[in-house]
Amino acid sequence: MTAVTDTIRNGVDTKQLFATLDLIKEQPELAKFQFRVSNRWIDGSHNRSTIKDFYAAGGEDTTRGDPFVIDAGEPAILVGSDTGANPAEHLLHALAACLTTSIVYVAAARKVQLTSVESILTGDMDVRGALGVDDEPRNGFERISVSFRVTGNAPEEKLREVVERAQKRSAVYDMVTNGVPVAVEVTTH
Amino acid sequence: MTAVTDTIRNGVDTKQLFATLDLIKEQPELAKFQFRVSNRWIDGSHNRSTIKDFYAAGGEDTTRGDPFVIDAGEPAILVGSDTGANPAEHLLHALAACLTTSIVYVAAARKVQLTSVESILTGDMDVRGALGVDDEPRNGFERISVSFRVTGNAPEEKLREVVERAQKRSAVYDMVTNGVPVAVEVTTH
Repeated sequence: MTAVTDTIRNGVDTKQLFATLDLIKEQPELAKFQFRVSNRWIDGSHNRSTIKDFYAAGGEDTTRGDPFVIDAGEPAILVGSDTGANPAEHLLHALAACLTTSIVYVAAARKVQLTSVESILTGDMDVRGALGVDDEPRNGFERISVSFRVTGNAPEEKLREVVERAQKRSAVYDMVTNGVPVAVEVTTH
Repeated sequence: MTAVTDTIRNGVDTKQLFATLDLIKEQPELAKFQFRVSNRWIDGSHNRSTIKDFYAAGGEDTTRGDPFVIDAGEPAILVGSDTGANPAEHLLHALAACLTTSIVYVAAARKVQLTSVESILTGDMDVRGALGVDDEPRNGFERISVSFRVTGNAPEEKLREVVERAQKRSAVYDMVTNGVPVAVEVTTH
């Protein structure tokens, strides 16, 4: 699945990875990033995000060509027409993707060659909260369960250490478990 | 942009919406939902989520045909090759999509005909945390800013009330601001 050379492991260029880490250690001001999403309502539960520009390492990053375009929707039971995964599912995807990327990078840095990383995430929700039927259940998931299957050329204990370290460093895991301050402003013209 | 009839407003079938709310009021056990995502590592920072089945209203929902498939990646500066938006951007998309859907549904319920809902979200991150260079900065965004532009056939005050109510009921806004318990389990064979 992945090439193994002196520097590329799990598809990650470890030479580049370590060079980036060294650079940020020396110049911490380069660590300030800003990611952005533009979203536009289309119809009903259908809306679309466009993702391209971001600020990184002291300037606007212009390496991306076409923007990423991601649609959201709701299934019929939530009065939609399935124009995309729903927002709560997108949050589970963000969490899965971040933990998986963290596992792959940590493994690469620790010289662990992975053969597979698979996960199933579930989120349990009492929709009375989000639908405004009852004030008691919270709006979001009551709990999220993540089940990983990770295989590679290392003993079980080392693979488990990689997952633990990845969990400790994942940006989305931090946000989903600890929360983030969100400021909302509105214009109406 | 949207048809206006007795029941369809902002593309939302309000008759169906109110019928769903009434049903869940009468039978709260139908409010238990579970959403799911399967994710698989492809190479480097490239991984892919598949989203289809979910549990809703007392049983497995089988109305969806093809699964939704969403790719994640990282830009070059984060040692990836831009195979998709990155996980933190996907989280911003989830938040944008949920707030927007909530605005549209609340407006439909309150007889407000919307003409547009647009938003720009930004998340500020000191990547020393997630990269493991420094223990002090958190891994995730330090803050998220959401800027909405909402227009429709209602006075500014009413449009602002719609956004406020939507914010109070959004599932992803709740999760991102307050956090969710996440349980991670691992198998290695």
